[in-house]
Amino acid sequence: MKTLVVKEHILKANAQAAAENRAEFSRRDITVVNLIGSPGSGKTALLERLTKHPEVRFAALEGDPETSLDAERIERAGASVVQIVTQGTCHLDAGMVHRALRELSLEGVRFLFIENVGNLVCPASFDLGETARVVIFSTTEGEEKPLKYPGAFTSARAVVLNKIDLLPHIPFSLDRAVDTLAKVVPRTPVFPLSCVTGAGFDGFVEWLMELSNRAAPRHGGARVAGRSVG
Amino acid sequence: MKTLVVKEHILKANAQAAAENRAEFSRRDITVVNLIGSPGSGKTALLERLTKHPEVRFAALEGDPETSLDAERIERAGASVVQIVTQGTCHLDAGMVHRALRELSLEGVRFLFIENVGNLVCPASFDLGETARVVIFSTTEGEEKPLKYPGAFTSARAVVLNKIDLLPHIPFSLDRAVDTLAKVVPRTPVFPLSCVTGAGFDGFVEWLMELSNRAAPRHGGARVAGRSVG
Repeated sequence: MKTLVVKEHILKANAQAAAENRAEFSRRDITVVNLIGSPGSGKTALLERLTKHPEVRFAALEGDPETSLDAERIERAGASVVQIVTQGTCHLDAGMVHRALRELSLEGVRFLFIENVGNLVCPASFDLGETARVVIFSTTEGEEKPLKYPGAFTSARAVVLNKIDLLPHIPFSLDRAVDTLAKVVPRTPVFPLSCVTGAGFDGFVEWLMELSNRAAPRHGGARVAGRSVG
Repeated sequence: MKTLVVKEHILKANAQAAAENRAEFSRRDITVVNLIGSPGSGKTALLERLTKHPEVRFAALEGDPETSLDAERIERAGASVVQIVTQGTCHLDAGMVHRALRELSLEGVRFLFIENVGNLVCPASFDLGETARVVIFSTTEGEEKPLKYPGAFTSARAVVLNKIDLLPHIPFSLDRAVDTLAKVVPRTPVFPLSCVTGAGFDGFVEWLMELSNRAAPRHGGARVAGRSVG
């Protein structure tokens, strides 16, 4: 019983911090993606590849239980980045993101990508104030992952299916994966792609730009209305 | 503060249940392996492959947030198995294992494999009463995983590096992975293998049999001594 109460308390505090983050992101007209996936699913590789698409001007927050290896990769690829080391904690929460934002330059960026801790379970419970969640899983993980980890998949606005370049070498059926996704998340767009070859990337970039365009007029509109009334 | 107290309380209750499990495993002369790895690292495939080695007579407990897909795979492969569906919880605990044992036939088995929830973070905090932990990660996850998830790796008695059959197709350096493991877990045996081709499997099976042999005389001895005194 006690545990449940504390969990509620934690999630309530998180929801408040997430709302503050969301307000700040909206004020600054930044589209924020919370990227959730297993260790090794290709979260950092996705961001590295995105630096080759100049229209997706982004900064990044990198979450890991230990090390700043991912932040170093993103920095080398040319984006502004801050590492959040959770010291063993299995997910990012909105407070961690809030504190890390003080260290991160968001000057001139259109997107902020928050790479969550490599984990398909716990991160799904914590709103960070993002515009949208994207879940990434890879062909090497097997077709049935959406059934086993529905929390992450059902809360995502898009699904990236990474490592399609390995399809000729592994017992993975793209058709079966797409069927499974259609059962678990029938209305969610799915982007099979390869962060190594870049195949399938354009569709995902297009979706990101639409996400940002859909968000921008709403924010912009609210500000204009505010001014005209004032 | 409250959170910390509850966490301590949870871990204390877990330690007690784990001690009871351990006593029961010892009484029944069963070597118990707690298998920890990311989603898709190959935990179920490892058990499927082990059914081809008749000396490793085993039963299995399968942990997943949802579905009984893994238990069905293991059953098809010919081992006695019970699925533990955690309903979203990110790890197994000793109480879940204790309850599942009531449903599982351990008649004539030498090993019990407990396949934990696919997660490299949370399962590392929960003793299940096992003889040994084994952590499994795959070449497709990248060489640096032991640095990022030290909790799982440092608590393991052996490391399985799966999917070596994919080495020709991916940017993964086996040498760099072995160097990284030597830094994080210098005294832990590492078994590069493929659950698809079976390459490298014999060394891991040999290690399992040694683990079981080392455990058995101790348990057996204690029983004999008890009898001779009585």
